[in-house]
Amino acid sequence: MTVTEPASDQAIVALLRARVPGVSTDPAALAAHATDRSGAGAPGRPVALVRATSVADVQETMRLAHAHRVPVVPRGAGSGVAGGALATEGAIVLDLSAMDRILSLDPLDEVAVVEPGVVTAGLDAAAREHGLMYAPDPASGAFSTLGGNIATNAGGMRCVKYGVTREAVLGLDVVLADGRLLRTGRRTVKGVAGLDLTSLFVGSEGTLGVVVGAALRLRPRPQTTLTVAAGFADVEDAAAACSAVARERLQPSLLELLDRATLEVVDRAQGTDLASRGGALVIAQADGTGAHEEVEALLAVLGKEATWSELALDEAHAAELLTARRLALPSIETFGRALIEDICVPRSRLAEAFRGVEAIAARTGVAICSFAHAGDGNLHPIVSFDAGLAEVPAPVLEAADAIFALALELGGTVTGEHGIGLLKRDWLAREVGPESLAVQADLKRALDPHLVLNPGKAL
Amino acid sequence: MTVTEPASDQAIVALLRARVPGVSTDPAALAAHATDRSGAGAPGRPVALVRATSVADVQETMRLAHAHRVPVVPRGAGSGVAGGALATEGAIVLDLSAMDRILSLDPLDEVAVVEPGVVTAGLDAAAREHGLMYAPDPASGAFSTLGGNIATNAGGMRCVKYGVTREAVLGLDVVLADGRLLRTGRRTVKGVAGLDLTSLFVGSEGTLGVVVGAALRLRPRPQTTLTVAAGFADVEDAAAACSAVARERLQPSLLELLDRATLEVVDRAQGTDLASRGGALVIAQADGTGAHEEVEALLAVLGKEATWSELALDEAHAAELLTARRLALPSIETFGRALIEDICVPRSRLAEAFRGVEAIAARTGVAICSFAHAGDGNLHPIVSFDAGLAEVPAPVLEAADAIFALALELGGTVTGEHGIGLLKRDWLAREVGPESLAVQADLKRALDPHLVLNPGKAL
Ligand SMILES: Cc1cc2nc3c(=O)[nH]c(=O)nc-3n(C[C@H](O)[C@H](O)[C@H](O)COP(=O)(O)OP(=O)(O)OC[C@H]3O[C@@H](n4cnc5c(N)ncnc54)[C@H](O)[C@@H]3O)c2cc1C
Ligand SMILES: Cc1cc2nc3c(=O)[nH]c(=O)nc-3n(C[C@H](O)[C@H](O)[C@H](O)COP(=O)(O)OP(=O)(O)OC[C@H]3O[C@@H](n4cnc5c(N)ncnc54)[C@H](O)[C@@H]3O)c2cc1C
Repeated sequence: MTVTEPASDQAIVALLRARVPGVSTDPAALAAHATDRSGAGAPGRPVALVRATSVADVQETMRLAHAHRVPVVPRGAGSGVAGGALATEGAIVLDLSAMDRILSLDPLDEVAVVEPGVVTAGLDAAAREHGLMYAPDPASGAFSTLGGNIATNAGGMRCVKYGVTREAVLGLDVVLADGRLLRTGRRTVKGVAGLDLTSLFVGSEGTLGVVVGAALRLRPRPQTTLTVAAGFADVEDAAAACSAVARERLQPSLLELLDRATLEVVDRAQGTDLASRGGALVIAQADGTGAHEEVEALLAVLGKEATWSELALDEAHAAELLTARRLALPSIETFGRALIEDICVPRSRLAEAFRGVEAIAARTGVAICSFAHAGDGNLHPIVSFDAGLAEVPAPVLEAADAIFALALELGGTVTGEHGIGLLKRDWLAREVGPESLAVQADLKRALDPHLVLNPGKAL
Repeated sequence: MTVTEPASDQAIVALLRARVPGVSTDPAALAAHATDRSGAGAPGRPVALVRATSVADVQETMRLAHAHRVPVVPRGAGSGVAGGALATEGAIVLDLSAMDRILSLDPLDEVAVVEPGVVTAGLDAAAREHGLMYAPDPASGAFSTLGGNIATNAGGMRCVKYGVTREAVLGLDVVLADGRLLRTGRRTVKGVAGLDLTSLFVGSEGTLGVVVGAALRLRPRPQTTLTVAAGFADVEDAAAACSAVARERLQPSLLELLDRATLEVVDRAQGTDLASRGGALVIAQADGTGAHEEVEALLAVLGKEATWSELALDEAHAAELLTARRLALPSIETFGRALIEDICVPRSRLAEAFRGVEAIAARTGVAICSFAHAGDGNLHPIVSFDAGLAEVPAPVLEAADAIFALALELGGTVTGEHGIGLLKRDWLAREVGPESLAVQADLKRALDPHLVLNPGKAL
């Protein structure tokens, strides 16, 4: 007889233990797997942690959860910043990070088949040995998992040229809410047989299925990458220069813009003197066969209105020019806690977005540093506050709300790459409207009728 | 009072006429809109043709169809080759081709907003004026519509470098089965708010909703495109050369392979002497800033085992080298009717695919010419037969089935870019398996509970 009624927490744990190894109820282990990098507290206490080591573990966990209506929170590295992996009351936390094997890497077909727990940078390093790269490069790549990247459709700096995670996913193995194993997509570069289920799971933040495997597309690794940096009087000039890059039809492989507040914090933390040299910084890269010609063109375009500009032809120099970008977030975090926001606007409106955020900082009195994947119009306003505070202060939340409103006003989105998670749910409704919400809810019910997969998140 | 019961054909037409202009029941008009380019006959007689000129027309049509359970077959130019736009018994044929305005084209954001009936090449031409291109370039681009391209996730020659239609779609306006208007996606380059509904509609072949608008991503148009062609003793050598291109991590913007049968038919139709110079032909292009260096590298790699090779540095010469590819299908159609197949295999298995198709031709005794988007492993075996025959002969169907089986055997798909339509439905089941079919059916029911949208197609 299968028990199909709701059961007590204790009974759930007993049933889990009978079916799946790697079950823990140790409070320390639970606490360590209850949060993510959003800085928000878990909204509830989980009943158990399952450290899956096989597809069967995931299937057994889901079958049980489905039968007994137990919520399941899938998680990879817990590096998310939208609260998607936060534990909820009575939930099973399903940790995929131990399923971390690269199952195959075909250098001719340029396809890797991986388990979900493989760390992003690990796949890129494996690809490098064959002259390939795994293009999506979230700044968290050294610790985030591919499963988490897929579930959030992660972006990164290279995606201005190479696309986001979705563009790299050919097919998935997904355990559905009821424990069925679904294979989506294909192992070929192209294919249009049936609905695009792959894309439906990409970015679904653990609400439609658990990613237990993926066929990922690799790309030739460019042999040359050249870097240019340029300082500007202010963000308007810097944004105008980025627009000029687009107008000249240049295609940088990286185009980042840092505002004055960011430069000042980096200077304070690292002892540099960036802010004295200009009120905004643009860093751009060109790669591939045409890199030399392209970087010269970038330098010419960016240099026009710049207060200074510099071209790096070797890696050490390039790394130096990139320092400010690489250390921006760590520098901010030296002085306090950081709420990492992530709006995206049509790139023609980037200057307005920067100015709008500055106005919000002035109005609410909170410190906001902003930097952007300028080529994509994807702006990260980092709202920081005293690390000693138990709660996020009201003006910080007010500023965040104002930032989301600004994004929508400018024809953009409240999240370019981090996801909705727990923290932006109200804003999802405002952004997509009632028709879209209703359709999303219908699709969710079609795939997860008992709403056990990451309830309260994303949708 | 709203009538919500099934009604007679006459009553349906009367209701339609009361709500929508552009309704026709003229037998000639119906016949002209009942078929596509698959060569298959329409499986049934439609009751009416609606030539939509507005979103409201589409909404009214769908509301009525939903209420009265009348099937609707959306269609663009009817250039599909999988039977997706074939009229079915009692259906309303909903023609979107008159909604053909480019609503906006923002050269800085590189985004165009279009109605579904815009012809593919028309958008590309408009983009060209701004130094941009609409990258997906189906060979039917001179007459296919963007709505049809989106509904089939069309590919083309450039997509080896620039991706297929899906990669170019930022957001959609879709009329759902019940007439609701849904906006998906966004007008920004990146965005991850909520489920990726956009991709779900891309490639859904008119079964989930009617595309009435799209925000499409444009890309910088490369200023330089250089072409190289090389002859080979046989398809093994040619496929090996294409593999070498991948192994050298070159990224051509076009990589096509034509087999001996194709060359012979082109020679026969065009008076050329291609087949005498080699048993297979490869054509490659490099574009962008690094084009010169890349085309030299392509020439070196392809030239190694080639019987001849040639580099074109001007457009006229390039056009000449591309003639065989451009005229392949028209040449085949000079001598008979053509069944256009479209399998995709891991590109490392391309030679096996060519040889397998040759063996099928020998075994069934039918003529098959094959050419491939070699960089993607996407092979088009063109099965031809006597144009005078009323029915497709049994050996032709047998050959087609054997080709699909071969694709699956080689780890590929039965359709790389044309879709499932009516003609490959049995094969969809074999390819994706029961779990995927069940999930697709669940999603279909969630969006179209009365199954009025293009029933009997794709799913
Ligand atoms: C310093 C720092 C820099 C960052 N930079 C970037 C950046 O540049 N770009 C970017 O996009 N993000 C960035 N992030 C955010 C974060 O790293 C990404 O969202 C990442 O994709 C999360 O991966 P993870 O393995 O940590 O997933 P988690 O945080 O564990 O989970 C994230 C979401 O995915 C779901 N999930 C995880 N694994 C699975 C699975 N196998 N199946 C189904 N659902 C699953 C979870 O339920 C949750 O909803 C950054 C974060 C930090 C802390
Ligand atoms: C000579 C030739 C060359 C070709 N080359 C290529 C090629 O290189 N690559 C390629 O991918 N295809 C190619 N095709 C196939 C065909 O052109 C494509 O499938 C094209 O995308 C169909 O567009 P259409 O407007 O003609 O759509 P139709 O044939 O009218 O319809 C195709 C499908 O889309 C649906 N549909 C159409 N419009 C809408 C809409 N607005 N909303 C919802 N559903 C809709 C229909 O119901 C049907 O299922 C070729 C065809 C020919 C005849």
